[in-house]
Amino acid sequence: MTRTNVAGDRHLLGLKSLGKEEIVSILDRAAYWESHTHKLSPVLEGKFVANMFFENSTRTRFSFEVAEKRLGAQVLNFAAAASSVEKGESIYDTVRTLESMGIDAGVIRMKPIGLLAELAEKIKVPLINAGDGNNEHPTQALLDLYTIRKTFGEFKGLTVAIIGDIMHSRVARSNLWGLQKMGATVKFCAPDNMQAPELSEFAGYVTMEEALQADVVMMLRVQLERHDKGFIRSAEDYRAHYGLTVERAGMMKPHAIIMHPAPINRGVEIDDELVECDKSKIFTQMSHGVPIRMAVVERALS
Amino acid sequence: MTRTNVAGDRHLLGLKSLGKEEIVSILDRAAYWESHTHKLSPVLEGKFVANMFFENSTRTRFSFEVAEKRLGAQVLNFAAAASSVEKGESIYDTVRTLESMGIDAGVIRMKPIGLLAELAEKIKVPLINAGDGNNEHPTQALLDLYTIRKTFGEFKGLTVAIIGDIMHSRVARSNLWGLQKMGATVKFCAPDNMQAPELSEFAGYVTMEEALQADVVMMLRVQLERHDKGFIRSAEDYRAHYGLTVERAGMMKPHAIIMHPAPINRGVEIDDELVECDKSKIFTQMSHGVPIRMAVVERALS
Amino acid sequence: MTRTNVAGDRHLLGLKSLGKEEIVSILDRAAYWESHTHKLSPVLEGKFVANMFFENSTRTRFSFEVAEKRLGAQVLNFAAAASSVEKGESIYDTVRTLESMGIDAGVIRMKPIGLLAELAEKIKVPLINAGDGNNEHPTQALLDLYTIRKTFGEFKGLTVAIIGDIMHSRVARSNLWGLQKMGATVKFCAPDNMQAPELSEFAGYVTMEEALQADVVMMLRVQLERHDKGFIRSAEDYRAHYGLTVERAGMMKPHAIIMHPAPINRGVEIDDELVECDKSKIFTQMSHGVPIRMAVVERALS
Repeated sequence: MTRTNVAGDRHLLGLKSLGKEEIVSILDRAAYWESHTHKLSPVLEGKFVANMFFENSTRTRFSFEVAEKRLGAQVLNFAAAASSVEKGESIYDTVRTLESMGIDAGVIRMKPIGLLAELAEKIKVPLINAGDGNNEHPTQALLDLYTIRKTFGEFKGLTVAIIGDIMHSRVARSNLWGLQKMGATVKFCAPDNMQAPELSEFAGYVTMEEALQADVVMMLRVQLERHDKGFIRSAEDYRAHYGLTVERAGMMKPHAIIMHPAPINRGVEIDDELVECDKSKIFTQMSHGVPIRMAVVERALS
Repeated sequence: MTRTNVAGDRHLLGLKSLGKEEIVSILDRAAYWESHTHKLSPVLEGKFVANMFFENSTRTRFSFEVAEKRLGAQVLNFAAAASSVEKGESIYDTVRTLESMGIDAGVIRMKPIGLLAELAEKIKVPLINAGDGNNEHPTQALLDLYTIRKTFGEFKGLTVAIIGDIMHSRVARSNLWGLQKMGATVKFCAPDNMQAPELSEFAGYVTMEEALQADVVMMLRVQLERHDKGFIRSAEDYRAHYGLTVERAGMMKPHAIIMHPAPINRGVEIDDELVECDKSKIFTQMSHGVPIRMAVVERALS
Repeated sequence: MTRTNVAGDRHLLGLKSLGKEEIVSILDRAAYWESHTHKLSPVLEGKFVANMFFENSTRTRFSFEVAEKRLGAQVLNFAAAASSVEKGESIYDTVRTLESMGIDAGVIRMKPIGLLAELAEKIKVPLINAGDGNNEHPTQALLDLYTIRKTFGEFKGLTVAIIGDIMHSRVARSNLWGLQKMGATVKFCAPDNMQAPELSEFAGYVTMEEALQADVVMMLRVQLERHDKGFIRSAEDYRAHYGLTVERAGMMKPHAIIMHPAPINRGVEIDDELVECDKSKIFTQMSHGVPIRMAVVERALS
């Protein structure tokens, strides 16, 4: 049985494959939704959206669910213990099953890389990537772009420093693709064992000192247990060398902002006192997640 | 305090106790819902349905939830770690608790056998069996009947071979009762250690060769870890003797169909290439789950 | 960035800090909702309520969810594995995150004591305590008050004996504060190692014999594994000394009632036969949970 992919470009698999115009159109639509005074706008009444999380994530699922419900969609949540769906085959069967039950769109998070593109070929309903391995997390990057655009008005001339575990970060990758398309300059900063060699042709690595001179200082969540211990042997070591301490934040430009995709390791990659300081856009970012996801889900179903 | 059972025959405990006319009426109503063009039909507006899964099951819960929401009901999901509710007493307390909170119907899955009939005597709201131990899984069998009727038009003269772990299968049992009532002939096929002696008076065991001559070849999910090892020592052994391989599928009648309740062990009870082949109704079955459950939930609350 | 608490007295943190008039007003509103014939009253249409359970609780979450949905609110459920949010900091970040996504009120259960008051200072949306450590469980006590008032008409002159693990019980504490405000007399009964020294100035400890002479005999769930073994070495010991046995229930006053917050250990703190006996209000209590929570959630959002 041949199944034709009819969802086409209503999927959102990543920012690497998304055109600049598409990005701008999503940001603009998110601005519309952010300014919208009514909480409920039943433009998706009668549509069923499944949040399929093969990897756990309360925050992202919650943000999508708020977005979907504000648009009037019926929401179904599915969270699988990673163990039972490690294999791509099983993920395919599950997604096909939910599709056969009549869902109109799927938001999907999973560990395997590359599987989502395969699924998008085989599944007839639009799929939205809510994070796949260390590959992409497009809605996170879109809400980051939205926050940056709202703060600075435009991307031209801006430098964004992404600091931390680049190797494992889908947030870093999606931001890299998105920011470069929009005209910003991206710089990475990371200890050797957290760098991503395959990305070095797209963005150079700089010292913390130089990173702190960026217009946007974007800290990543560090998970020390993922790394062979190099010269960073502890959370204290990490903070000492790559943490955004109060002292280091004092070296930032006056107009520069601090970002972080959360969840935050307070006192490791960022000092407690900075999380809600004037420069910080951390919770603002999260609040932008809802209008961004409204725009993305609406796009998938229109 | 004596509590009178007012739900009466609006329960759906199993197909063994359901009359043929009732079955036909559910299938007919499902056909209505399948042909219905609007996704939402708020015939159950203001009704609260609780999906109480004392045994985990994403697929079945999801299918019920889509059905309930399409009917406009308010849906509450409850999933209990098996550990905390192993004892029937505790299940009773939980169901009574949810009933006392004002739910209008309950969909319930649990391990203990026989408990559901007891609950149905004590609980005032209609209960729908979503699988109890190896006893019954009536909505699965109803969607199987629906798929068979839609394919062949009628049941008279049809032979259905159910192949695999009959002993542990509630799907096999519910299909046996349902198919025989509708006039089809049921044959089982299973290794010795997966047969169900108490069912042998209702359906005989045949060889794989004979089973493959049926009009419907229904494969069951095998869970090898459940069995004392007889001559089947591995997944490979199982496939070799009882798996629906591409080669064996080639021996089926031209008009015959393949069914499977899912989840599927690809490469064990059925070859990967067969899951979505022309003969396969596997994902079609799943799509029929929603209209069947709409009919069943509507019946419970009408 | 300074954030002003605008939720003010629309929080419900506990009964210790709630005025008698407020309590009466909630009970009265619950009576309104209990008598309401329509299941759905969309007074909270367009409002988003998050049930944030950092400690697991199916019953309480379910009761809140029914209440919220009957009021027409959009409901989001969040259940965190205790392990990932043991630290208060992390709970704060999670609640702030959900707040930033635009929820209008939060129902919250957690282990740490004292953290909720801190959160209520920092979070702009009203928070409802669904149980925090052994501190308070105000909606449980409110539904208990409601049940008592409905049974006896008033609180003046009533004696309520709370029997069992006072030390670990938030239900005992919230009932103590609420019942005393309403004019009832509270007596505790517990083995030495389950007493709460800091409460002894508010209510005295009596023998089981005296406790059984109360108008309300409120049994608490006992969790023996929480205690250093004193002279109570087993469930049988507990039942023998502090259980409400059929024999002991026979000593209660004719008009007296039995209460229990559930879940119940049948055969430990209360005999199986008593759970649904004429004196028992156990499932009645649970049914009162919904109108109480409707009143509380409505109050938070009005």
